[in-house]
Amino acid sequence: MPFHDLKALREAALHPIPGDDAAAAAADSRQARLTKPPGSLGRLEGIPAWLARWQSRSEPRLERVAVLVFAGNHGVAAQGVSPYPSAVTEQMVANFAAGGGAINQIARLGGAALHVVPLELDRPTEDFTERPAMDEADFLAAVNAGVAAVAPGTDLLCLGEMGIGNTTAGAAMAAALFGGAGWAGRGTGLDDAGLARKEALVRTALARHPEARQDPLQAARCLGGRELAAILGATLAARQRGIPVLLDGFTCTAAAAPLALLAPGGLDHVLIGHLSAESGHGRMAAALDLVPLLDLGLRLGEGSGAALAIMLVRAALECHRGMASFASAGIAGPAA
Amino acid sequence: MPFHDLKALREAALHPIPGDDAAAAAADSRQARLTKPPGSLGRLEGIPAWLARWQSRSEPRLERVAVLVFAGNHGVAAQGVSPYPSAVTEQMVANFAAGGGAINQIARLGGAALHVVPLELDRPTEDFTERPAMDEADFLAAVNAGVAAVAPGTDLLCLGEMGIGNTTAGAAMAAALFGGAGWAGRGTGLDDAGLARKEALVRTALARHPEARQDPLQAARCLGGRELAAILGATLAARQRGIPVLLDGFTCTAAAAPLALLAPGGLDHVLIGHLSAESGHGRMAAALDLVPLLDLGLRLGEGSGAALAIMLVRAALECHRGMASFASAGIAGPAA
Repeated sequence: MPFHDLKALREAALHPIPGDDAAAAAADSRQARLTKPPGSLGRLEGIPAWLARWQSRSEPRLERVAVLVFAGNHGVAAQGVSPYPSAVTEQMVANFAAGGGAINQIARLGGAALHVVPLELDRPTEDFTERPAMDEADFLAAVNAGVAAVAPGTDLLCLGEMGIGNTTAGAAMAAALFGGAGWAGRGTGLDDAGLARKEALVRTALARHPEARQDPLQAARCLGGRELAAILGATLAARQRGIPVLLDGFTCTAAAAPLALLAPGGLDHVLIGHLSAESGHGRMAAALDLVPLLDLGLRLGEGSGAALAIMLVRAALECHRGMASFASAGIAGPAA
Repeated sequence: MPFHDLKALREAALHPIPGDDAAAAAADSRQARLTKPPGSLGRLEGIPAWLARWQSRSEPRLERVAVLVFAGNHGVAAQGVSPYPSAVTEQMVANFAAGGGAINQIARLGGAALHVVPLELDRPTEDFTERPAMDEADFLAAVNAGVAAVAPGTDLLCLGEMGIGNTTAGAAMAAALFGGAGWAGRGTGLDDAGLARKEALVRTALARHPEARQDPLQAARCLGGRELAAILGATLAARQRGIPVLLDGFTCTAAAAPLALLAPGGLDHVLIGHLSAESGHGRMAAALDLVPLLDLGLRLGEGSGAALAIMLVRAALECHRGMASFASAGIAGPAA
């Protein structure tokens, strides 16, 4: 890393770093001794072993938690796929810098450092209903921006995005990666006519870029966007640097999805923080065999749903570290 | 308060304190101006107005958050409705005092003070398949213990319980309050034979106490337990003292449910923190028209699912207080 060409990126994606089974087994072994009926902490019980496996530490840490929000602008936005003008992407980046976004508040509450990475906002991607969103150099530059943003030594990484029009890019990528129709959703608030237009644009884009259906990286290049490519790069780099990842909603999940299609288990170091209200997110999560942690009807992006899930990961680890065992507390176990 | 007789308790339950509509409207008005598409924070968007309404403050606070866990023992436990012996109730209370329970870790993470209130653990309730669980004096004493435990000035109160055998009490109360069969679940880990025995005990209890089907307070007295009665008292007292409440899972919700049946809106100051894996909790929540915030497959009790939800309530309030408005941040709104 960085990736000098598409071949190097593909090679890395095809051969994801394996997890540390011994660390995970040690964490699970501790879990089984804690003062609670087996399984009674539900989803929280698997989280310590997940952290252990990807941090390669039998006693995982959450000292350095980061939220990365990538921002990009989209040529397809000119087709009226959002109620908001493209200028809002940059305005929201300024809002994050000033501390005024939802993600600022949620990241602070989660004890996470927030980094917002704007990606050539004055140079939108091409309109992918006409041309590939990015040429190879642009795509690699965005992927590498994602790679570069992942600080080694991070214990947990939340990923998010900001980009007016980018749920259309996410829908086009989902359609190319998973097939079928109906991936377009209402985004920030499309009406019925806007939704029908968005769905038609996705169909047009797929017909324009047949290579996107054959190759997940071409889907990301032709149909995605800079912030989506950066999420792909950051997700891959996190795996290589021993960092478990929380993904956000629809667009963020679509951005990382090529890694699961390129290699079995390519997203095993990832949990989805929340199920977005954007239609299609549940379907995409199911296709990836991932069950989102939260389901609160959020559809904001900005990494907000990923960052909200930090506290669940912290709770899981605090229980794992802080609870007594049946033996140490002198508590009777269940009848044989 | 305290309630000197059942009539005084009934009177208070029949006339719940109204909420502060003006404070709630002020909170909602601020929500609408924040830098996000309307509704994009999903369930979090309603929480500031809920806090405002019941705290009677247009700018609600979460400075003093408390978790109350009531513990009790149950005569019905002698019938083998749990894999664990009744001695575990007291052992777990000691574990909480030593800081070794799941709830200790989760409450600390949520910035909440934890208070565990054991209720005559050496004097289990009567076996309600034979006699009423409590006589009127015992029932009122437990309700009043709940009332007394609610500190005025608390900004948010989480309620939970610990009591070997108490999911059987919760199931019997649910059957009496909501009708129908199938309220018994596996609790801490019953096998099929144990589950069938538990369901049969619930049927026997209901046949034994016909008054429980007529009167929600009799259901709580005849079929509940001390910790359930204390949750009822604490939930009612919280309303009177301007304190919004997060309930935990199946047993906790069953304990508070009489307040909704006695008066329309009697639980409007309550959210359910999480959907328990205990079968019947979703059905009970739906009957109460309450949608739990989290759904993580927890079935531990101890207030664990209520306390986990504190961070969601905090996130909702942090966004409400900390986010910029479209006007203040100079961000374009949606096209008309």
